Amino acid sequence: MKLRVNDMPVFTADQLHRLGVMIFEEAGVPSSEAREVMDLLVESNLVGHDSHGVLRISTYVNAILNGRVKPGAKIEVVRETPTIAVVDGKWGLGQVVAKRTMDMAIAKAEKYDVSIVATFNCGHIGRMADYALMAVAHEMIGYCAVNSSPQVVPFGGIERMFNQSPLGWAVPAGKEPPFVLDISTSVCAGGKIMVARAKGEKLPLGYIMDKYGNPTTDPEDYFAGGACLPLGGVVGYKGTGLAMVIDITAGLLSSRGPAYLGAGRGQGVIQMAINIAAFRDVSEFKEEMDNLIRAVRNSKPAQGFKEILVPGDLELRTKKIRLEEGIEVPQAVWDEIVQTAERVGIDVKRYL
Amino acid sequence: MKLRVNDMPVFTADQLHRLGVMIFEEAGVPSSEAREVMDLLVESNLVGHDSHGVLRISTYVNAILNGRVKPGAKIEVVRETPTIAVVDGKWGLGQVVAKRTMDMAIAKAEKYDVSIVATFNCGHIGRMADYALMAVAHEMIGYCAVNSSPQVVPFGGIERMFNQSPLGWAVPAGKEPPFVLDISTSVCAGGKIMVARAKGEKLPLGYIMDKYGNPTTDPEDYFAGGACLPLGGVVGYKGTGLAMVIDITAGLLSSRGPAYLGAGRGQGVIQMAINIAAFRDVSEFKEEMDNLIRAVRNSKPAQGFKEILVPGDLELRTKKIRLEEGIEVPQAVWDEIVQTAERVGIDVKRYL
Repeated sequence: MKLRVNDMPVFTADQLHRLGVMIFEEAGVPSSEAREVMDLLVESNLVGHDSHGVLRISTYVNAILNGRVKPGAKIEVVRETPTIAVVDGKWGLGQVVAKRTMDMAIAKAEKYDVSIVATFNCGHIGRMADYALMAVAHEMIGYCAVNSSPQVVPFGGIERMFNQSPLGWAVPAGKEPPFVLDISTSVCAGGKIMVARAKGEKLPLGYIMDKYGNPTTDPEDYFAGGACLPLGGVVGYKGTGLAMVIDITAGLLSSRGPAYLGAGRGQGVIQMAINIAAFRDVSEFKEEMDNLIRAVRNSKPAQGFKEILVPGDLELRTKKIRLEEGIEVPQAVWDEIVQTAERVGIDVKRYL
Repeated sequence: MKLRVNDMPVFTADQLHRLGVMIFEEAGVPSSEAREVMDLLVESNLVGHDSHGVLRISTYVNAILNGRVKPGAKIEVVRETPTIAVVDGKWGLGQVVAKRTMDMAIAKAEKYDVSIVATFNCGHIGRMADYALMAVAHEMIGYCAVNSSPQVVPFGGIERMFNQSPLGWAVPAGKEPPFVLDISTSVCAGGKIMVARAKGEKLPLGYIMDKYGNPTTDPEDYFAGGACLPLGGVVGYKGTGLAMVIDITAGLLSSRGPAYLGAGRGQGVIQMAINIAAFRDVSEFKEEMDNLIRAVRNSKPAQGFKEILVPGDLELRTKKIRLEEGIEVPQAVWDEIVQTAERVGIDVKRYL
């Protein structure tokens, strides 16, 4: 059931999904929640963001087994008005909590055109795009961002103050697939550093610093007390500013608190839905989206570039390939999954 | 009345304000609107953003004299719900229109906690921070972004597709001054290139390309068909993604249309107000803002940096200096202002 290409185990999406659900179930996660989490982890692998894929199974299971994350938790709305809500995630699995809270944002925007839901006491929710995209199915623009543990220095600094502060935007188009932006506001996501480490690869210069503030390409330096750099390079004050906006909106509005207070507080989440129909005719809007996407894609590439991609293009292309050819899992990640499975009493060899 | 330091004319804020108001009045602008525009232009100079200061007087007057911008225009709300509005700016002066529309956003958020106002047919509105800050006076988080003419290539491209797509966020603090982020989502604002040109200075490498797509430091290359680069350098797809989000929200939601369709459509504006009190106790929020701002400012600087600045710090510091020492105006900018004044029948020498 398991092929080897480039010395890496390769699996179908379905294999990883089934194995993951089984592991989570054995760790005490209700079946429906196990499936919800694995839907999003496997989707991340499929679209090429291995940083948010099955690599996370082991840390999620650890968090469940040590009691930090509580499967089956019922979220609690602590403040609510027609357009906004503040939600206590009760330390539920991040994906489960964030889907519920995005549903709330969408329901509010259906009635009131724009809405914000801010959530605290929440596990790792994974990729921002997944939640932003939920709004697209309702002809809305969706937004999701989180703060979390401190990993990123401010511009000109060497102390970790901000999280990678990822954000996701999704916008429906007409005949084109939706616009989907999912980026960290640091030079790279923390998960990308985890992937490089798992593969034994170096990072490009300018992504991270070591604990003394020196530039480095070795992911180990990051885990040994180094830090990630803010987006922007010489104008990194822009990345720092964007990270602070997310720290404030996802962290302070939600009452989670700012990133620099540490990882113990989980993820602070902000989600927004904007009802396009309130602003203009939706089909006209979508036609303009198609035109915009095509104009960008068809614009002239620079030397060294074969084509211009629109946010979301690369992910769809990767998904098509991985649905056909399978998902490569770095050996170190796979070994960890096998160990995690054993920890909850599953002999992976029997199932693959 | 006019000193010379570094061979540049220096003026007090008051001198520039009075002169500007006089010029706009003679160009047919109602006094109250002339003052509103000059309030914001001089404020930009005071806080150090000369790119959005009196340098703009001449282009604004040109736009008025050639009939493109219409002083005294009455804006028209073309769509409205309790939380959102779409506004036809009727080609009024950007600052005048954008203050009215931000007032609308604030009034809606007072009642409904979160609001979005999108505006089309609008002149150049200047600095985003000015409007975001209006929300702070109401204990709200304010946001403003615009799209406009195409000046920035997509990542990997050489055709101008997006505007510099500036955005502004402002958040109230307690004892600290408000957090104020005002950045373009390209490497630099278009106005910074105008300032470098006016001063005869070069730009750092990595800011702009010439019309063939080659890196250059000469601002003239930009005006000769070159373009600005997206924020992010090697990860410039992030800057491109952020620019597209602004093109979509400020341009498409407002019906202005995307940047690539050209400058003739003026600025598309999106403004948002978020009522903090809906989410949590405002004084607690502001105390956390103070703590966050201080923690960042007091964190350890990297080699080559004396201190860490929080967005808004540099501007306040510059304002203090310029209120005392005056505002330097590059000779080329000053000459243009004098010519513009003459065009509307004002002999500047008589007034300074």
